[in-house]
Amino acid sequence: MAELSQERHKPPRNLERDRELIIACPPMRSNVNLSRIVRTASCCGVRRLVACGNPKIDPKIARDGIETVEIEVRRSLLPVLRQLRKENFQIVGLEQTSESVNMHSFRFERRTVLVVGHERLGISDEVLQGLDHIVEIPVFGLPYSYNAGTAAAMAMYEYCRQFPTG
Amino acid sequence: MAELSQERHKPPRNLERDRELIIACPPMRSNVNLSRIVRTASCCGVRRLVACGNPKIDPKIARDGIETVEIEVRRSLLPVLRQLRKENFQIVGLEQTSESVNMHSFRFERRTVLVVGHERLGISDEVLQGLDHIVEIPVFGLPYSYNAGTAAAMAMYEYCRQFPTG
Repeated sequence: MAELSQERHKPPRNLERDRELIIACPPMRSNVNLSRIVRTASCCGVRRLVACGNPKIDPKIARDGIETVEIEVRRSLLPVLRQLRKENFQIVGLEQTSESVNMHSFRFERRTVLVVGHERLGISDEVLQGLDHIVEIPVFGLPYSYNAGTAAAMAMYEYCRQFPTG
Repeated sequence: MAELSQERHKPPRNLERDRELIIACPPMRSNVNLSRIVRTASCCGVRRLVACGNPKIDPKIARDGIETVEIEVRRSLLPVLRQLRKENFQIVGLEQTSESVNMHSFRFERRTVLVVGHERLGISDEVLQGLDHIVEIPVFGLPYSYNAGTAAAMAMYEYCRQFPTG
């Protein structure tokens, strides 16, 4: 590998169609986590993110995501999730529950809303009941749960793996 | 889905054998990123992490990882990577280069050292030349690179997906 050279920030993969993935966040405890999710989403080609409460995106963390991702601020998730379902999005929550499916074997629909959980409270019962699917990322050790931004990143990675061209 | 209930921090998956994945970090710019990597590694069942320089793990971020992951502090990566190769570990770097392989199609060896890059500088040329493989995570938008902790998390997720039982 004598000829190899770093190509950091090299041009991204071209998507053949726009991403039909939307990220939806309840009011988060940490604007750091939310800002990290915005950066990851932008890198994944995601263009829409619903944020609830009083989100403050930190441009040092979100980087270009603050320009490229449209942040829709809502009071709560339920009404927008209902609307998106009418637009034929499948609503998928990222949560550990009695019924959640292992993300390793989950097949995303292209047209998906990924609902992230609050750092301490997870996804509220009210929202849980309205999801089409609940997926969990296998955990193999303490503290038995991933950071919210980390879990969202793993799920976005999995979605992009399944839809590498959009 | 009327009966479902949250089971946050539910017991982890049992590994049938110890993880043979080791995370190796150069001196990092941010102890926050390093601490996040420690938490993610712990959740993934990883038990060894090599950290260079003067690492300070924040227990509020790394959580139980600070107890469960053995942090080996080294001055630099090259000697320990050479030693681990002698112990039949495959040395895999996470970097965008002219020769890097798409992680979507990369098959990890079970016995792997995952080398993470510095936030600004990536993996040094000296270390790059000594890797067995270089993998990159596809990027689809600005800022054209994932946060170092995010990229490490995606790679750990992919490894665990390939070795769900250890």
